[in-house]
Amino acid sequence: MKYYPVQSGYPPYPAVNLAIEAVFAEHGRGNVQMPPKVYVTFVERGDFRTMPAYLPALGIAGVKIVNVHPHNRARGLPTVMALTVLIDVETGMPKALVNATELTAMRTGAAGAVAAKHLSPWDSVSLGVIGAGRQAEALVDATAAALKIEEILVWSQTEKSAEAFATKYSEYNARAVSIERACDCDVLFTTTPSTKPIVKADWIREGTHINAIGADAPGKQELDPALLLKSEVFVDDLGQAVHSGEVNVPISTGIYNAAQIAGTLGEVVIGKIGRSSPEAITIFDSTGLAIQDLAIAALVVREEDGYELPFP
Amino acid sequence: MKYYPVQSGYPPYPAVNLAIEAVFAEHGRGNVQMPPKVYVTFVERGDFRTMPAYLPALGIAGVKIVNVHPHNRARGLPTVMALTVLIDVETGMPKALVNATELTAMRTGAAGAVAAKHLSPWDSVSLGVIGAGRQAEALVDATAAALKIEEILVWSQTEKSAEAFATKYSEYNARAVSIERACDCDVLFTTTPSTKPIVKADWIREGTHINAIGADAPGKQELDPALLLKSEVFVDDLGQAVHSGEVNVPISTGIYNAAQIAGTLGEVVIGKIGRSSPEAITIFDSTGLAIQDLAIAALVVREEDGYELPFP
Repeated sequence: MKYYPVQSGYPPYPAVNLAIEAVFAEHGRGNVQMPPKVYVTFVERGDFRTMPAYLPALGIAGVKIVNVHPHNRARGLPTVMALTVLIDVETGMPKALVNATELTAMRTGAAGAVAAKHLSPWDSVSLGVIGAGRQAEALVDATAAALKIEEILVWSQTEKSAEAFATKYSEYNARAVSIERACDCDVLFTTTPSTKPIVKADWIREGTHINAIGADAPGKQELDPALLLKSEVFVDDLGQAVHSGEVNVPISTGIYNAAQIAGTLGEVVIGKIGRSSPEAITIFDSTGLAIQDLAIAALVVREEDGYELPFP
Repeated sequence: MKYYPVQSGYPPYPAVNLAIEAVFAEHGRGNVQMPPKVYVTFVERGDFRTMPAYLPALGIAGVKIVNVHPHNRARGLPTVMALTVLIDVETGMPKALVNATELTAMRTGAAGAVAAKHLSPWDSVSLGVIGAGRQAEALVDATAAALKIEEILVWSQTEKSAEAFATKYSEYNARAVSIERACDCDVLFTTTPSTKPIVKADWIREGTHINAIGADAPGKQELDPALLLKSEVFVDDLGQAVHSGEVNVPISTGIYNAAQIAGTLGEVVIGKIGRSSPEAITIFDSTGLAIQDLAIAALVVREEDGYELPFP
């Protein structure tokens, strides 16, 4: 059994995007075992989630364990930390432990890149970015490996964060703008922890693709429900999205109906479904799947050396 | 974050029994978070189970991941291997990885010792042991730290195994006997993977306490249902026992009713319930709880040095 500490920026995004695309294809074919995430909550501190899965065709099985502790920032620790245990399918033996803190942001970024590649009608795009944290960076980095980025229009509640983000991505002609201006783009990423809609329906032009990333728990939402109603919505996993994705609040209040969801990203990747026309607005509602975590962990194990540990 | 490889026979049973008794007490007080085990299955190979839990009063949280691969024996590997991840409650950071293969047998043995201590009317006992594998040894070792063992009557389907077991425990006057003779005892352990009753109701005398350990999955059973009907049955966890414990088959066939269960071991440990008279036959139906795994892992972390690993 080996432990893999995993440095930032490794493995490279072209490889990550391919691995993530491959597991979404398996999901689209209905060829995965992925029980619902299990939540354990620590009152007034945070929670941790246990995410087991198995990809029979790829021979990959395991569990990601991930916490969310909002007060960690004040301690100088990440609010989200994660560990993935890969299990040998033939023997059941744990064969790898992978530090998945950085990988969690990367696999989410890669899902966004795969969605943008398959759902945007353009190969060369102006990017709008709402929220300028770690997840926004991972989305841009992953998308840069999938599409040509002409410009980046970034907005953050903290102007300083938006300016720093723009400086970091100056090679893509990035600049800090108003939220309304950021929405005037080909591909939009929303990455905030908002519980109220912040993106208005009439700010979005025809043909835009949106990755709605921020909402990953009941009560969270970033988009005007009117925008959902005039768009084609694709989810990563139907059960998880209804429970905790961008659609969770509008569904629970009756504004939106789960039957209006167009399908899953996996079905898009295998070519079963897609956007109906170049003019349609498409939305990818991402909650984060255990199969993404297994895919990126397996990539690390294949490419990186780790610490050998005695087991059993 | 540290990794603990865990050697056989460590930590010592008096400490393990106390830790296991403490978490059953928390369970009896209703003071644990323990979602149901999640199963992922590998067709024709085996499965793995993910078992998260949290003990607020003890400040212990984490997940055990454990497989069952019956073909491993032919490979020279344990059929059951396990790894426990302990999570820091305050920050959510994984703080310890513990090889739980040996600990899984030990924590089950300790639950049996705690049950025998609280439910047998005798402090000095003759032990009957059905099945002579690793789990039977752990039960004897743990019980030796809780009660005085006068003699051991062991039966196994393989006579050679029973003889080897008797030799190993000669200090307790152990001897290989018929299954009927083994049942004529004060405290009986059943530890086989049987799917048909092998212990007959009229072999069991008044005042006997039975630890029914073998049945831990739907379809498994070791005891004549008539024995359940004339006994007082205590379970480790009501949901798990009805799903996969000794009572699962008789309940699914309608011979036994879940409402007839006397209560949980946790309620016994805190003195809320107990055997009704010295003459009653009592049964402890053990399926194995995530809180037991966390308790013994936390004990290892407190007492043993491990490998330091970089995290986050």
